[in-house]
Amino acid sequence: MANNEYEQRRQAVAEGLAGRKLDALLVSFSPNLRYLSGFTGSSGALLILPGKSILLTDPRYQIQAPQESTCQVRIVKGPLVIGLLAAVKKLGVKRIGYEPARMTCDFFDAVKSQLSLRASLEPVHGWIEELRMVKSADELELIRRSVDTNSRAFEQTIARIKPGIKEQDLAAELEYRMRRLGAEKPAFETIVATGVRSALPHAQPTGARLTAGDLVVVDMGAFQGGYASDMTRMLSVGPPNAKVKRMYRAVLEAQLAAIDAVRAGAKTARIDSAARKVLKGHGLDKVFIHSTGHGLGLEIHEPPRLGKHDKARLRAGMAITIEPGAYVEGFGGVRIEDTVIVTEKGCEILTPTSKDLYIV
Amino acid sequence: MANNEYEQRRQAVAEGLAGRKLDALLVSFSPNLRYLSGFTGSSGALLILPGKSILLTDPRYQIQAPQESTCQVRIVKGPLVIGLLAAVKKLGVKRIGYEPARMTCDFFDAVKSQLSLRASLEPVHGWIEELRMVKSADELELIRRSVDTNSRAFEQTIARIKPGIKEQDLAAELEYRMRRLGAEKPAFETIVATGVRSALPHAQPTGARLTAGDLVVVDMGAFQGGYASDMTRMLSVGPPNAKVKRMYRAVLEAQLAAIDAVRAGAKTARIDSAARKVLKGHGLDKVFIHSTGHGLGLEIHEPPRLGKHDKARLRAGMAITIEPGAYVEGFGGVRIEDTVIVTEKGCEILTPTSKDLYIV
Repeated sequence: MANNEYEQRRQAVAEGLAGRKLDALLVSFSPNLRYLSGFTGSSGALLILPGKSILLTDPRYQIQAPQESTCQVRIVKGPLVIGLLAAVKKLGVKRIGYEPARMTCDFFDAVKSQLSLRASLEPVHGWIEELRMVKSADELELIRRSVDTNSRAFEQTIARIKPGIKEQDLAAELEYRMRRLGAEKPAFETIVATGVRSALPHAQPTGARLTAGDLVVVDMGAFQGGYASDMTRMLSVGPPNAKVKRMYRAVLEAQLAAIDAVRAGAKTARIDSAARKVLKGHGLDKVFIHSTGHGLGLEIHEPPRLGKHDKARLRAGMAITIEPGAYVEGFGGVRIEDTVIVTEKGCEILTPTSKDLYIV
Repeated sequence: MANNEYEQRRQAVAEGLAGRKLDALLVSFSPNLRYLSGFTGSSGALLILPGKSILLTDPRYQIQAPQESTCQVRIVKGPLVIGLLAAVKKLGVKRIGYEPARMTCDFFDAVKSQLSLRASLEPVHGWIEELRMVKSADELELIRRSVDTNSRAFEQTIARIKPGIKEQDLAAELEYRMRRLGAEKPAFETIVATGVRSALPHAQPTGARLTAGDLVVVDMGAFQGGYASDMTRMLSVGPPNAKVKRMYRAVLEAQLAAIDAVRAGAKTARIDSAARKVLKGHGLDKVFIHSTGHGLGLEIHEPPRLGKHDKARLRAGMAITIEPGAYVEGFGGVRIEDTVIVTEKGCEILTPTSKDLYIV
């Protein structure tokens, strides 16, 4: 990302302060901090004022922080909150916005208890997350690359595996490929769940082996250049039986219907209901136990959420997943997931991987 | 971990409630939740009362949660906080302990604003973290396995690499080996930093290649069975020069001095000063810019911290890292790190890997 993109974002925040009756915004949640400063360290706090931004972090990052960010950097020995209070005092800011969804009660209390009487902390809900929802051209390019790496890792690995491989080892191969193709790390713990375990939407890979007759869910994502990708594909160990085929077709139909409903201006709940309606037609709506998708970017899960009760409207430039599923305890589960970018007329499906049921 | 170990932990908490004037303890921070319930899902809340524990989570975990935990499981559709409030109301609990260091302001406000007037939230500081500091025999066994996997991954990989490999690719190889040896995932982003980048204590691996004359820091850890390991070793690409050798010897001497100071009853700051004193003798104390170590377990960083100002005393059964370092901007850095278990008389060094400077 170019430095001036971070500067423009901070500028936008600085310009929004007055309208929110704030003198400054305090950001300490890593993805928001990175979005606004470029700093990738694990601990820091950013104070944005009109015409000035101060990044506070600890001595471990004294070389890295000025390399990554054009903010004014202050290295704080000891608790960050002490350095923060000193900065606030020196700058004379009074109304300081903070992110209650992202700050612990302890941090809040530590700041609050030591602020001068004339200064106050004012809650700010989802401002930066709102900015983050619609991606810039540079961000979309990073997501595209991340999706591409993720898909190539899947395709290269699946072409080489044989029945009998352990869930854990398949997950290890997928993550290794991802990294060799340029990812920093998996975006979440890669899910490889075989047989009846495929009915667990968030299964962790075990020592179980892929065995003839198994249905296998593979849900994987990469972080590359800081941005997430997310994809789910299904494997069948040997030819699938009729029940598996029916379930697969139903979920695929639901996924395509949801993708078809995506366009700028559409209500998020509308995308979810498009998938749910199809699954209902197949008697599978009761076993579709999560929402149809979520935004992704600097986090693997970020707004908007595409659930039954979500009222936000899609906007062009949002990056979202479309991932309906059906989970039958004691039998197995099917989920199919792509990463797509919302456009004015519909969407661009980034995930290039075939949606066939892969036979291994 | 045996189910009864979780039950014993909850029992200990339940018995401690009265002394803290609490009717229940609310735990939602993942490592604490796992420690007390066995549940490994990414989202949940645990309410511990005398004689009863309720685990609330969402429908994604409706199969997994009862498999992992003997707590009474309630599946909550929609916001967890709503289910939590319903449970609190039904149980008639009044004084509810919460973890302010682990709870967001938003979650706190959501609970607080809907509690009945007779009920209150009471801050509980570090209770579960305190319990977690001293490990059980089963936990130590898991840490031992994690350390062993981590070291074997390092040794197998280092034996096979050649100069010219990229930092990223070396990190990918290390993590792949880790996983193939049974780890669930790296305990943190593996650090491989070559040349002047070795002076960044928390460097992320890049496309830079290991080049003749480079000093390389490799800091890696695994999560296996939920428990962390942590190790740092140094490589030299080709024979090290005299300055590198001097710096390496100084840090090694500091690390051995710190290990020598470890025993039950010793102040944590005392371990740090043992390392710092040695580095001072070599004129390197000003460039030792972090603390000497930290506890590890279900988290990669957990109490106790072994820094200059830390006053806690070590206890037998704690698992800690010992990792002094020296970082010279524009030249490079050296860090050497082991995972050790505190014993009555000293410590057991778990990390089996040689502390020689590895020549590649």
